[in-house]
Amino acid sequence: MSTKQKSIPGSEGSPRKDTPKSPVAAKLKKKRTQPSPDELASGIISGDVVALSRAITLVESTQPRHAEHAQSVIEKCLPYANRSVRIGITGVPGAGKSTFIETFGKHLTSLGKKVAVLAVDPSSSISGGSILGDKTRMEELVKDKNAFIRPSPSGTSLGGVARKTRETILLCEACGFDTIIVETVGVGQGETAVHGMVDFFLLLKLAGAGDELQGIKRGIMEMADAVVINKADGDNEKAAKKARAEFARALHLYPPKENGWVPKVLTASALKNRGIAEIWELVEKYTGKNRKNGYFDRKRSEQNKYWLLQTIEDRLKTSFYQDKNVKKTLTEELAALEKNETTPFAAARKLLDLWNRIQ
Amino acid sequence: MSTKQKSIPGSEGSPRKDTPKSPVAAKLKKKRTQPSPDELASGIISGDVVALSRAITLVESTQPRHAEHAQSVIEKCLPYANRSVRIGITGVPGAGKSTFIETFGKHLTSLGKKVAVLAVDPSSSISGGSILGDKTRMEELVKDKNAFIRPSPSGTSLGGVARKTRETILLCEACGFDTIIVETVGVGQGETAVHGMVDFFLLLKLAGAGDELQGIKRGIMEMADAVVINKADGDNEKAAKKARAEFARALHLYPPKENGWVPKVLTASALKNRGIAEIWELVEKYTGKNRKNGYFDRKRSEQNKYWLLQTIEDRLKTSFYQDKNVKKTLTEELAALEKNETTPFAAARKLLDLWNRIQ
Repeated sequence: MSTKQKSIPGSEGSPRKDTPKSPVAAKLKKKRTQPSPDELASGIISGDVVALSRAITLVESTQPRHAEHAQSVIEKCLPYANRSVRIGITGVPGAGKSTFIETFGKHLTSLGKKVAVLAVDPSSSISGGSILGDKTRMEELVKDKNAFIRPSPSGTSLGGVARKTRETILLCEACGFDTIIVETVGVGQGETAVHGMVDFFLLLKLAGAGDELQGIKRGIMEMADAVVINKADGDNEKAAKKARAEFARALHLYPPKENGWVPKVLTASALKNRGIAEIWELVEKYTGKNRKNGYFDRKRSEQNKYWLLQTIEDRLKTSFYQDKNVKKTLTEELAALEKNETTPFAAARKLLDLWNRIQ
Repeated sequence: MSTKQKSIPGSEGSPRKDTPKSPVAAKLKKKRTQPSPDELASGIISGDVVALSRAITLVESTQPRHAEHAQSVIEKCLPYANRSVRIGITGVPGAGKSTFIETFGKHLTSLGKKVAVLAVDPSSSISGGSILGDKTRMEELVKDKNAFIRPSPSGTSLGGVARKTRETILLCEACGFDTIIVETVGVGQGETAVHGMVDFFLLLKLAGAGDELQGIKRGIMEMADAVVINKADGDNEKAAKKARAEFARALHLYPPKENGWVPKVLTASALKNRGIAEIWELVEKYTGKNRKNGYFDRKRSEQNKYWLLQTIEDRLKTSFYQDKNVKKTLTEELAALEKNETTPFAAARKLLDLWNRIQ
C-alpha cells in the first residue's frame, strides 16, 4: 500500500521536512522501538505530527497491546481535545469531493487554520482503495504544513471504522488541529456515522441534467446543514443555478431542524476557487450562533452519549449473534417465520431462552 | 374503565347481541372459568368475537400463565392469519382520526369487508385514556357487526405495546377480519412501530392556515404511502386544495420509495363522506400492484424479521441497562463523559467488562 503510506505526512520512515526535530521521529530512527504512551501523548500535545501519526496507527491496530496503548495516549490527550470545528462532507463519487476538500482546506490554512482531513469509508478495505488513498487527488494540501491528511482506517465493520475515526479526531485536536474535516463517500451507511461525529454536515452535489433530487439516499437531505452544488463553472453554471433553486425549495419543505437552522444551498467551483470563502463564512455563522445558544456543546454531549450507548449495544448484539448455537437456531426460526409457522415474538423468546442457558 | 369495557364489542360480561350462540360466551356465563387455548383458538377460527376478545385479553395480560396461554392460542391461529390488508393511520390530535376511521370503516363494511380497528398508543396509560377509549367517537362503527374495535393495550414501553398489537392483528385475521386498521396518534414514536406492522401507511392532515409541512415530525412524510387532507368541506375546501398541492410537491421532492411508489395526496371529508371511496380505491391499487410484483409478501417477511431482531435487541438492552451495577457505573461514566474525562469507547469498554463479570 505505497500510496497509503505516502499519503500520511509524517508517518514513520518518511518524516516531514518541517518537523526535523520530532523526538518521536528521532527515536524511531535510532532504535526502532515503540515510543511509550507518555512520549506519544506529550509529542502530540506539543504539535508533533510524527507522534500523531504513530498514535493513530495504534488506534487502528487490531493488536490488544496496541489498543491498550492507544487508550492510554487518548486519555492523556483528552484535556487538550475538543477545541475544534468538525465538518462532515459527503457526496457521491464524481461530485468532486477531493478537489473540493483540497481547495476548501487550502482556503482554511490561508486563514491561519490547522486542518485535519479524515475519512470514514468502511468499504475501502473491500474495494481495495481508500477514498483518500490516492494522494495525487490532494497534491497541494498534502504539502501544506498546516494540513494533516489521513486515509480511512480499514475495517469491514462500520462501528469499528467510526470508532477509529472518532478517536483520531480527538488526537488531531490535541495536536492543535482546529478544523477537522471528515469525508465519507455517499453510497453507504457512512453518512449517519459521520453526521454523528461532526458539528456541521455538508452535502456536495453536482448539477446534473435531470431531476436533481434523484439518487440522493433517503435521510441524507435531512442530515445536511448545507448543500453545495459543486462544479458551478463554464457550461455547468446555468444547471448549477437551477439545481440550487430546486434544492432550496426542497429543503424548505423539510421539517425544521431541532436548532431552528434552515439548511442553506450554495454553488461553488472548487476548480476555479469560487464560492469557497462563502462556505466557510456559513460554517462560521452556524457555529457562532450555536455556540452562543448552547446547541454546539449540547450536540457534542449528545453525540458522546450516542456513541457510548451505540458501542454497548453493538457489542451486546455481536456477542449474541456470533454465538454458534444462536446462529443455528436463528436460521431455523427465520425459516419458520418465513412459512408463518411462528411469530417474531415466539421466535425471539426461544432464542433468548437459549442464550440465557448458554451464558 | 367502563368506557373501555363498552368499546370492546363482545368482551366478557357484555356479549354482543349478534353472537348469542358463542360457546365461549356461554361457558364464561355459566362457570366463569377460563376457556382453554384450544377452545379459544377454535372459537376465533370459527369467527367468534367473544373468543377473540378473550384471547386478546390474554395477550395483553402481564401474568406469565396468561402469556403462555396466549402464545398457545396464537400458534394455533397462525395458519389462518396473515390474509388481510393492514392499514396504518396516523395524524396529530385534531386531524379527525376517529371520524375518519368511522366513515372509512363503514365504507369498508358496506363493501362486505370485515374490519378490525386497533391502536398503538404507548402513552395512553400515562395520559389516562386510550385514543380509542372514548367509544362515543366511533358510535356507528361500534354497532356494526362486521367491525371489531379494540383500544390500545396499556403499557409504558413501546416495544410491549407494539408486540401486543401485532399479536392482536394475527388473532383478528384468524377470526376472519380481512381489513386491519391500526391507528396511532402522531406525537410519539408510535408511527415507526405502526409503519413496521402495516402494508399501507396513511398520514391524515388537516388543512391549516400556515405552512402545511410545519409540525410534521421528521421521518413521517417519508413513511407515508398516502397523505389525506381531511375536513375538506365548507370554508376549508380552498385551504385543503392548496395543502394538497403543497404536499404533492413536497412528496415529489422526496427520494422515491423502494417499490417505486410515489405517495399520493388526496382530500376528503369524513364528516360529509366525500373522498372516502377514492382512498380505498388507492389502497386497492397499491396492494394489487404490490401483490403482483412480490413486494407485498416481501415487505411482510421483512417486517417479521425486523420484529424478531428488534425484540431480541430490546431484551438484551433491557437486561443490561436494568442491572443495578450497570446503572450506577453508567451514571458515573456519563458524568465523566460530560466533563471530557473519558471517551464513549473507553466508557463502553468499562461497562461491558463489568457486565461480563457479573453475568
